[in-house]
Amino acid sequence: MKERILTGDRITGKLHLGHYVGSLKNRVELQNQYETYLILADVQALTTHFEKPELIKQNLRNVALDYLSAGINPDQATIFVQSLIPEIAELTTYFSMFVTVNSLRHNPTIKAEAKERGFQDMYYGFLGYPVSQTADITFCKATLVPVGEDQLPHIEQTRKIVRRFNQLYKPVLLEPKPLVGDVPRLIGLDGNNKMSKSLGNAIYLDSTQEDVNEKIKKATTDPARIHKTDLGHPEICPIYAYHQAFRKEGSDEIYESCKKGQIGCMECKRKITRSINDLLEPMRERRIVYQNDPKKVDEILMSGTEKARLIAKETMQEVREAMSMNYF
Amino acid sequence: MKERILTGDRITGKLHLGHYVGSLKNRVELQNQYETYLILADVQALTTHFEKPELIKQNLRNVALDYLSAGINPDQATIFVQSLIPEIAELTTYFSMFVTVNSLRHNPTIKAEAKERGFQDMYYGFLGYPVSQTADITFCKATLVPVGEDQLPHIEQTRKIVRRFNQLYKPVLLEPKPLVGDVPRLIGLDGNNKMSKSLGNAIYLDSTQEDVNEKIKKATTDPARIHKTDLGHPEICPIYAYHQAFRKEGSDEIYESCKKGQIGCMECKRKITRSINDLLEPMRERRIVYQNDPKKVDEILMSGTEKARLIAKETMQEVREAMSMNYF
Repeated sequence: MKERILTGDRITGKLHLGHYVGSLKNRVELQNQYETYLILADVQALTTHFEKPELIKQNLRNVALDYLSAGINPDQATIFVQSLIPEIAELTTYFSMFVTVNSLRHNPTIKAEAKERGFQDMYYGFLGYPVSQTADITFCKATLVPVGEDQLPHIEQTRKIVRRFNQLYKPVLLEPKPLVGDVPRLIGLDGNNKMSKSLGNAIYLDSTQEDVNEKIKKATTDPARIHKTDLGHPEICPIYAYHQAFRKEGSDEIYESCKKGQIGCMECKRKITRSINDLLEPMRERRIVYQNDPKKVDEILMSGTEKARLIAKETMQEVREAMSMNYF
Repeated sequence: MKERILTGDRITGKLHLGHYVGSLKNRVELQNQYETYLILADVQALTTHFEKPELIKQNLRNVALDYLSAGINPDQATIFVQSLIPEIAELTTYFSMFVTVNSLRHNPTIKAEAKERGFQDMYYGFLGYPVSQTADITFCKATLVPVGEDQLPHIEQTRKIVRRFNQLYKPVLLEPKPLVGDVPRLIGLDGNNKMSKSLGNAIYLDSTQEDVNEKIKKATTDPARIHKTDLGHPEICPIYAYHQAFRKEGSDEIYESCKKGQIGCMECKRKITRSINDLLEPMRERRIVYQNDPKKVDEILMSGTEKARLIAKETMQEVREAMSMNYF
């Protein structure tokens, strides 16, 4: 039997190349090897976007389309909607009983995020999102969770909660392991060290050829290079970073020619534009098919959710039994 | 249409005379006047008893029997099990998004209880129980919540959460009002100012005649009275307090005769023993009927829960629609 993976996204925006490089590409590869559960985390999106429910609704389908376009195969992977699995809320409630407020407050990722978002006074739901993530992972008995380094504290907390639950009641939950891949952080078009929607420095997976051409054309490069013959500093240039990410095979050559002033930024950009468009082209083709068949997309989400729900109900039954809550 | 009441108990132990005087008597009277929803709060019981799930399970039926014996009419009132309404967990999750940790930390009742229970480091679920209570009240659209003074901060928090929800999304939730009755606190058999299971100073509703006789016989009285003719201080005597609570009509006379040293403690105790047994006798009769028909009790709980669940599903649908979470 294949091991089960739980992965997914807070659906606060459509996905961009940073997501692709950081996780989506990996997921497409992993879906053959593992039984993949992909969560569209609308509830977790509320922890930061409770004032923008319309945006979450809209991005549910955007992100689903991004998944399908990027090559997630709905016959292999199960895509489901978090809020339609009430068992996640139930498990979160039960886990909350024995997780201390301080263990959440001291979670370094929570601390960093709260600071980044300027939360003076944290929301209760935000503070508890690692507990809710534990429910996401455990309801479907996933044993592997692909994460970046910054998510390791959450997985550690999940493992602690699972151990505590199993020891308090009965060993019915599985302790997941992080699958720390190389989850590279893609530099933004403006040279900012993270491509992100909020920084407005992203190339989205649903970009047209023209979008890509335009955005790359305007992208920041090494400011020291005015003329083609100026010696370049590829290590600080987002375009070189994209060569590494999307045009690996030619990136050493780019590095050398840039260093030596043998290639102009225009030419360098033309090459990467082509590679990115080559990457996005099959996505565009798949996207059109799904976009023209919204019923199909809904069916995929509904049947994925139904499948996840069945597992959730089974787990919940085991959990209730373990907690002596099988009353009738 | 009758207004709806939500009331109930954390099912951490069977009920005693303190519960009867403080709430149960009142509920039996209110059930004619209001549509009463009685919650068997097993999830909230976990906030302090997560290590004792067996005890909660056992008390689910104990408390249900206490309700029915005390005169709650299952054809009028709806008795239901909290954990079997997953919508409560879902609503709790949604409300958590916009309730700040500090507003919970500063809730005076939470503070006092945490201190009383010696919680150094609060559990996340315990800290959030006012949010969960808000879900209890709002899922069934109760507009009245019978409470004691100490629960007023929770009702205030509930009202705030409801207003915030209605303003953020759509006005689908009802703002409840507290029904502050005279919720007297019954003194314990040992003279401690609160009758309570943990202090071992309680007379339970399921007590036999012998239990009552025995417990009253051993109860503390005014220590200044050795002989019948010693002048008494009824205001500090639990037995006199019981006269006030259960034998109102004769309590003035008791007061006077005690003050003047005209009645002995033995006689005074005999009188109250009789009154308490008179109160409990019809409860015993009803209890026997239900005890001999455990299937009937299960049916009452199951059909009450089913009825509550239907309302919960309706409310949840409205909530999801208000939050733009009606995806399909």
